[in-house]
Amino acid sequence: MTNESWLPSLITETPEEGYELAVVLARKAVGMTQPDAEVRKKLRSVYANNPDSLTLASQVVAIHFQTVAAANNYWKN
Amino acid sequence: MTNESWLPSLITETPEEGYELAVVLARKAVGMTQPDAEVRKKLRSVYANNPDSLTLASQVVAIHFQTVAAANNYWKN
Amino acid sequence: MTNESWLPSLITETPEEGYELAVVLARKAVGMTQPDAEVRKKLRSVYANNPDSLTLASQVVAIHFQTVAAANNYWKN
Amino acid sequence: MTNESWLPSLITETPEEGYELAVVLARKAVGMTQPDAEVRKKLRSVYANNPDSLTLASQVVAIHFQTVAAANNYWKN
Amino acid sequence: MTNESWLPSLITETPEEGYELAVVLARKAVGMTQPDAEVRKKLRSVYANNPDSLTLASQVVAIHFQTVAAANNYWKN
Amino acid sequence: MTNESWLPSLITETPEEGYELAVVLARKAVGMTQPDAEVRKKLRSVYANNPDSLTLASQVVAIHFQTVAAANNYWKN
Repeated sequence: MTNESWLPSLITETPEEGYELAVVLARKAVGMTQPDAEVRKKLRSVYANNPDSLTLASQVVAIHFQTVAAANNYWKN
Repeated sequence: MTNESWLPSLITETPEEGYELAVVLARKAVGMTQPDAEVRKKLRSVYANNPDSLTLASQVVAIHFQTVAAANNYWKN
Repeated sequence: MTNESWLPSLITETPEEGYELAVVLARKAVGMTQPDAEVRKKLRSVYANNPDSLTLASQVVAIHFQTVAAANNYWKN
Repeated sequence: MTNESWLPSLITETPEEGYELAVVLARKAVGMTQPDAEVRKKLRSVYANNPDSLTLASQVVAIHFQTVAAANNYWKN
Repeated sequence: MTNESWLPSLITETPEEGYELAVVLARKAVGMTQPDAEVRKKLRSVYANNPDSLTLASQVVAIHFQTVAAANNYWKN
Repeated sequence: MTNESWLPSLITETPEEGYELAVVLARKAVGMTQPDAEVRKKLRSVYANNPDSLTLASQVVAIHFQTVAAANNYWKN
């Protein structure tokens, strides 16, 4: 279905899936600013070899993981 | 109506709309500091090709998404 | 009244006013470190043309907006 | 009294005093890493003229202000 | 068991184990962007000697530690 | 006792001790990435004279202080 949302819910079965959702959330904003997948691929080869770039990217995932974890009540239930 | 607020509410129907609102919130402060749309367009072509700039922009969206998600009780209801 | 506080309250009528308060909060710390308005004006013309500077400034607004939004219970009442 | 704490409490009378406490909290860590007041004064003259440095410093204040505001229940009582 | 999750839970016995989990969470996103362990090892020797890189990495741990600590109710029980 | 944890608890008697714990938490991740104390000492002499490095380090303390303050219910009891 083409109208399917890329983000139907913040709820995930497990913490690991929650982490993967955080990665999706982090990359989405990048794709909205730079919609050209070819350009993004080229840029990734650059920042994947720059330690500070990797740390910065990890930081955005960390912020989204806070949100997803809170949404799931930290998977405590 | 010209007096309509650009931010009438933090409540959105879906997580996806909440994410889009987070993008609006992130860009608003940029527009308040640099009100010239032509300049912003020129700057966007620069940072859209810089991986760290894209990551930084994604980080601001992540922070606003925390706020919007909390406002919507993580769309759990 | 000269003794009026620049920050009498975190409560605002609307989300939009809350966002404007977040901008005030972000700029206040800059003014405390660099009290010379002429210097700040000169610096603003620099960073208003640097995309990463604009993103960084937007990030500080985002952090303060979290605080203001929480203080107002996300304007849900 | 020489044994007086520099941080006896996070509670303040007003939001404005809470903001000032956030500034103190932000500067304290700098002083712990660079205890030489003369060096700090020299460094301040540098970063007070760099817009990104000012924004970064404002960001640390924003994070501490979140803490102080929460401690004071946003001065709602 | 090869299907074992790298993140079965956010719950840890002690604050110290929670901190170690935060380190794992911070490094995971780096590994997802740069899957080549040899490259990561090379990059680590670079950023381990750059003070700002170390601080940035510590910041990502700090954000994840917030999440883990909240999940464990700050190990107060 | 050599098996003593470096982080037995997030609870502290006072806000000031909580701040000191935040500093410990911020430095711990640095030590885990760069275990050589001699190298860290050398790096410290560099970043202690760089204003942005000092601000970045202060930011990590601020994030950990949020965690410690929440764990202690802001020392309100």
